[in-house]
Amino acid sequence: MDTELLGYAAGILTTIAFIPQAIQMIRTRQARDISMTWAVTMTAGVFLWLCYGIMKQSFPMISANSITLLLLFIILFFKIRDQGNSNS
Amino acid sequence: MDTELLGYAAGILTTIAFIPQAIQMIRTRQARDISMTWAVTMTAGVFLWLCYGIMKQSFPMISANSITLLLLFIILFFKIRDQGNSNS
Repeated sequence: MDTELLGYAAGILTTIAFIPQAIQMIRTRQARDISMTWAVTMTAGVFLWLCYGIMKQSFPMISANSITLLLLFIILFFKIRDQGNSNS
Repeated sequence: MDTELLGYAAGILTTIAFIPQAIQMIRTRQARDISMTWAVTMTAGVFLWLCYGIMKQSFPMISANSITLLLLFIILFFKIRDQGNSNS
């Protein structure tokens, strides 16, 4: 089996796993179920995996981590906005 | 900056993000907050990333995905056991 195809299949699965969470946040417009620690740690980690993929010139890693990072930014946006609301 | 070091930093962060969830499940011994679809999709995806890492001989990917896979197996174990309980 082609290695890059394997990488794309891996990327599609781990990216798909984030989509329901992001959709639920967009629909309910709240992020209570997600911990801030998790969101920040994942965002930093996925950003570093993206950098690693760029340096390794691995296109499956670049594409999967770019999309996951985008979904994490959506989650972080709602999380930070929610925290702002609860403090005011 | 050394590329492999960057990979290890990425792996530490995305693995750390899973630990609170696994610990919470071990402590509370329930997995209601986790969707079965998410757990199965993530397990399949992380398994394929592990295979990709092995084929690419990327030690940061092999180590990070091995540990994350182990944590996901813990989560899946509690999830499947919970579903069994609710059906009986």
